[in-house]
Amino acid sequence: MSWNTFGRLLRFTTWGESHGPALGAVVDGCPPGLAIDEGLIQPFLDARRPGTSRFTTQRQEPDAVRIQSGVFEGKTTGTPISLMIENTDQRSKDYSEVALAYRPGHADYAYDAKYGFRDYRGGGRSSARETAARVAAGGVARLVIPEVSIIAYVSEIGGDAINPAHFDPAEITRNPFFCPDPAAAARWEGLVDKARKAGSSLGAVVECVATGVPAGWGAPLYAKLDADLAAAMMGINAVKGVEIGDGFAAARLTGEQNADPMRPGDGAPAFLANHAGGIAGGISTGQPVVCRVAFKPTSSILTPMPTITRDGTATDLATKGRHDPCVGIRGVPVVEAMMALVLADHKLLHRGQCG
Amino acid sequence: MSWNTFGRLLRFTTWGESHGPALGAVVDGCPPGLAIDEGLIQPFLDARRPGTSRFTTQRQEPDAVRIQSGVFEGKTTGTPISLMIENTDQRSKDYSEVALAYRPGHADYAYDAKYGFRDYRGGGRSSARETAARVAAGGVARLVIPEVSIIAYVSEIGGDAINPAHFDPAEITRNPFFCPDPAAAARWEGLVDKARKAGSSLGAVVECVATGVPAGWGAPLYAKLDADLAAAMMGINAVKGVEIGDGFAAARLTGEQNADPMRPGDGAPAFLANHAGGIAGGISTGQPVVCRVAFKPTSSILTPMPTITRDGTATDLATKGRHDPCVGIRGVPVVEAMMALVLADHKLLHRGQCG
Amino acid sequence: MSWNTFGRLLRFTTWGESHGPALGAVVDGCPPGLAIDEGLIQPFLDARRPGTSRFTTQRQEPDAVRIQSGVFEGKTTGTPISLMIENTDQRSKDYSEVALAYRPGHADYAYDAKYGFRDYRGGGRSSARETAARVAAGGVARLVIPEVSIIAYVSEIGGDAINPAHFDPAEITRNPFFCPDPAAAARWEGLVDKARKAGSSLGAVVECVATGVPAGWGAPLYAKLDADLAAAMMGINAVKGVEIGDGFAAARLTGEQNADPMRPGDGAPAFLANHAGGIAGGISTGQPVVCRVAFKPTSSILTPMPTITRDGTATDLATKGRHDPCVGIRGVPVVEAMMALVLADHKLLHRGQCG
Amino acid sequence: MSWNTFGRLLRFTTWGESHGPALGAVVDGCPPGLAIDEGLIQPFLDARRPGTSRFTTQRQEPDAVRIQSGVFEGKTTGTPISLMIENTDQRSKDYSEVALAYRPGHADYAYDAKYGFRDYRGGGRSSARETAARVAAGGVARLVIPEVSIIAYVSEIGGDAINPAHFDPAEITRNPFFCPDPAAAARWEGLVDKARKAGSSLGAVVECVATGVPAGWGAPLYAKLDADLAAAMMGINAVKGVEIGDGFAAARLTGEQNADPMRPGDGAPAFLANHAGGIAGGISTGQPVVCRVAFKPTSSILTPMPTITRDGTATDLATKGRHDPCVGIRGVPVVEAMMALVLADHKLLHRGQCG
Repeated sequence: MSWNTFGRLLRFTTWGESHGPALGAVVDGCPPGLAIDEGLIQPFLDARRPGTSRFTTQRQEPDAVRIQSGVFEGKTTGTPISLMIENTDQRSKDYSEVALAYRPGHADYAYDAKYGFRDYRGGGRSSARETAARVAAGGVARLVIPEVSIIAYVSEIGGDAINPAHFDPAEITRNPFFCPDPAAAARWEGLVDKARKAGSSLGAVVECVATGVPAGWGAPLYAKLDADLAAAMMGINAVKGVEIGDGFAAARLTGEQNADPMRPGDGAPAFLANHAGGIAGGISTGQPVVCRVAFKPTSSILTPMPTITRDGTATDLATKGRHDPCVGIRGVPVVEAMMALVLADHKLLHRGQCG
Repeated sequence: MSWNTFGRLLRFTTWGESHGPALGAVVDGCPPGLAIDEGLIQPFLDARRPGTSRFTTQRQEPDAVRIQSGVFEGKTTGTPISLMIENTDQRSKDYSEVALAYRPGHADYAYDAKYGFRDYRGGGRSSARETAARVAAGGVARLVIPEVSIIAYVSEIGGDAINPAHFDPAEITRNPFFCPDPAAAARWEGLVDKARKAGSSLGAVVECVATGVPAGWGAPLYAKLDADLAAAMMGINAVKGVEIGDGFAAARLTGEQNADPMRPGDGAPAFLANHAGGIAGGISTGQPVVCRVAFKPTSSILTPMPTITRDGTATDLATKGRHDPCVGIRGVPVVEAMMALVLADHKLLHRGQCG
Repeated sequence: MSWNTFGRLLRFTTWGESHGPALGAVVDGCPPGLAIDEGLIQPFLDARRPGTSRFTTQRQEPDAVRIQSGVFEGKTTGTPISLMIENTDQRSKDYSEVALAYRPGHADYAYDAKYGFRDYRGGGRSSARETAARVAAGGVARLVIPEVSIIAYVSEIGGDAINPAHFDPAEITRNPFFCPDPAAAARWEGLVDKARKAGSSLGAVVECVATGVPAGWGAPLYAKLDADLAAAMMGINAVKGVEIGDGFAAARLTGEQNADPMRPGDGAPAFLANHAGGIAGGISTGQPVVCRVAFKPTSSILTPMPTITRDGTATDLATKGRHDPCVGIRGVPVVEAMMALVLADHKLLHRGQCG
Repeated sequence: MSWNTFGRLLRFTTWGESHGPALGAVVDGCPPGLAIDEGLIQPFLDARRPGTSRFTTQRQEPDAVRIQSGVFEGKTTGTPISLMIENTDQRSKDYSEVALAYRPGHADYAYDAKYGFRDYRGGGRSSARETAARVAAGGVARLVIPEVSIIAYVSEIGGDAINPAHFDPAEITRNPFFCPDPAAAARWEGLVDKARKAGSSLGAVVECVATGVPAGWGAPLYAKLDADLAAAMMGINAVKGVEIGDGFAAARLTGEQNADPMRPGDGAPAFLANHAGGIAGGISTGQPVVCRVAFKPTSSILTPMPTITRDGTATDLATKGRHDPCVGIRGVPVVEAMMALVLADHKLLHRGQCG
């Protein structure tokens, strides 16, 4: 079934395809009275925007967001906020090949199996363009949680990781990779360029840290803060893995190593470690919320791969056209947006139950 | 906020604490006319049951499930199925210490921060006993998807992994570790025993494979099959990471390596690989659905760890009482249950939208 | 599809059939720290209890509620509260007739058409016994809204209405009809007795008034306070109509007559009328919330009525056994419970969005 | 809290205010492969369109709907369908009076009490213009249930009812009142004209009948077909009462009078009456689904009424500007749309659970 809404109290619903006239998000449940205008949302879209370097797809989209409802005299009214982004560069091209055959690794076959047919132009609804709507919605969510700072960055591309000892948050916006380690950024330039020229693609890992989250957001079960984050992140195109705190590494620790001991602090415990990634029993602890997300390499590559046509004939198919050599890079603003949306939702949920 | 319901069409709601009289699940939305009785659900609970070997907690619970509604003449009626499991071994012990101080790594502090107080007996609602209710609900879900076979197993304990080349599904039920590799099972015996005797604990990785899932279950966005699986698995106590298919390893592959090429098959494509873990664009492809789940070592250890009391005083706390040296082991039936619940839900969702 | 959960933040899920071992409700989302015990819930169940006068069904049920979870040291913990009520008087009788033929006016045929079969013992899931679970859940909801007083009463039986000029709230609990007008109560005694002896049944109208609801609960659209009340009330067995404020009478007024003029009051407007029933644009105004609910006569009557058997043969069927001659009477505590549940939910929703 | 989504499987979310640039609906969960274009939706909007006779508001809006997503090559794709309608006649006028004082009977005070401020231009989000979005969404819903015919009409204005003996469905579109009785339509012309000239307003009753609904749609509890209809209808602006079948009249019948006896029919029972309005136990019976909806007179009248300003001062306020003398008239297409949306949702829900 189709289900294009995310969230419980702060909910957003997205719509739109790669090659339709526009795409958008309707954000519902936003508290009233928050100062808002397009200028507070656009910077996040600009960060995600394609065509800003040679390391991302060359599709040119201004991705200018327009607020269509829910705002009066510069403040949210508490009613739904409709955000719209027009598609301007749906380059006309020949889709006859992809209409007939399934691109391996793409959702083409699964769509056909589900719906009986599909909008094959640029991936249709499964295009990464949908994430622009998430980023816009995330811009609204940030207004709901001014106490929280969210930062995401690429920590690994094609298996080449940053050196945590060289982590410098100021570096993140200084290179086209959202990379906090300048040495790694320099290496990735060659790495991604090589993949791009070969028509290949690379995977990446994105890390996200939210500081300022007070203790008490989340729920013991089925709306655990970490479970909602996992759903939020795994729902981003191309994501195949999600970790909270130490994640899979925690499975290799002992209980002693993995403990986050506490000492008296200033109004709150002073934690001596954060293996848990700021979440225990589904509820925030007041420590930074830490999440790690694995992006697969995009399946759009120039090397022809074996596949079949809709009528079951063997063929080989390469993906022509504009594509991201490393889709994880542009995933950074999307991961931040999903973090903001989950946290804002849980802030309201906590306030609803516990006052 | 509290949110103890999971699922969209096939939904279950769980209730109960470690030291209350009982716990249970209400399964709603089950199709009518399915043959059912306690005997079809009990075996899954038996697999999860504590006290069956020295490698799990010594709490003794028969975990006998009783169907209280929704069944008539041995068949589901389509109305809610109430499942109840009585707690019988809530050993009386002295909780004064844990009532006053926060166990490090546990949800104690987060609960207090959220609710202002907590049921400190045996972890209360955040006890792993809640997973018995999931396993019972999963037993119902399996009846909804007879076309699917689900198998889970432990693939790694304390960093010691199975050898995939020695994988033998028949081994899984032959050792107390749900281990498909007899050599690994032998090694783990020493490993877990050592941790148990030291009052320590170990993490583990559980893998789950569902075969027989037809292509077309899932949804493009926000109810992606993989996003729902991620939420389901991350919501299990002690889980810190979830992967679909190659997961984080996919982030280190190229697009060529990660492709799942297709060739004409018998009524469906013959895939030449399954890096995607059976899900593309949030929709099942007909390949086995593959999921990997990281369990942290339980925080209940005998070594005293620094912590604080409720009134902010420094203290050291060890967790006495009965506990699992490797909680991931008993996570196997829980992971299977969550897989069954997600798949059954998506079967109904797909039928609802697409007929 | 089956859907046995009601509410958005404060949610309850009910389960159980007329002739199963028990029935219950799981209340989720309740704020923590509220003083609670069975004694605070039982009085509402006692008010609904069958067999307390000759004007209700002679089924004898103590309807003793047991709290099974979510409470610690006499306070709600914020986790799900499981409430269970055992069935004790599922009198064994011969259901062969009703198993074969559809009782006219009952849900028998509709159930069979939907599910392919049905639990025919005492109406199964569609029995009015389910409302005991609502009343228990409503008892919890009342704890969430101590600022609100809810009172319901029967205003009409079999077309014989109370005289509003003789309205005396103290009378409501002094007669078996929840009737606030002693003269009407005296008349109804004869009316209902006559119906009872004739094996007939009568309809009724129940009114419910909630005072103390502050202005601002509700939502502009789709979760309007009145829309949620309408769903809550129309979902009670045998209900066929719901009005807010003047209801259908408002359709016969002019705009001038229907206005609720305001004058300055003490911290809030002093309304000069309450045609709106305390709700404008889906949001409470601070005036009493007024709701009116129409109960049809129960379809269980002794006069044989034309019907068909499951295999399509014509037959005549009378409903033997114990039944309410006027099911609306026992609807009073149910209407109150649903009012409490809707208001408590909206209190939390409002707090969630607007702080 | 804000909640602008309706439905369970077929869901729609609306957005937009009276005086914003546009309004719209996102319809999610629609089955794939349905033939669709704007021409299939526009006629329903045209029926609701303002300014078509002197009996409705003189605001001129083409209400041209644009499909922005979810459709490919003239067929629904199964992904969200975004429908947008531009506002073109938000006449600039002086809102200073209504910004300062609360219009009696309107939601002005309740909005301020909830949100702290409000968009006072033309009612903002609580404007009846929002119903255009419902009507557009209803146009999509109708495509999902081609087996069902839905017809609504005005049965009463200002207390003057049609004569059921003169009911002629062909008349409904022949007069500006959606009136099936030509004699009543003639009377209403004078009645509504008089109210219009006096700057007054009148209430109305709208009836809606859906034929072709198969037996088995709906659910026993909390998602009862009638409960969902009640929520759908009570959520329409200005609605104060909802009846299913005989509604409040059923409360004055005996069980014998209210029964819907059955006789063997052609593949389904032949019902001898339809007091139940086609729904028993929350599930459709195969008979026509009958619903009746009470619209209050709009509160926008020219006679000044006592009210208060935002700062609590007494004043008198008349509503100037363009308004409907009988808002119930234009409620007809809205009632039809909500009926279609509820039925389509339940068709999918039933298919999901029962196959």
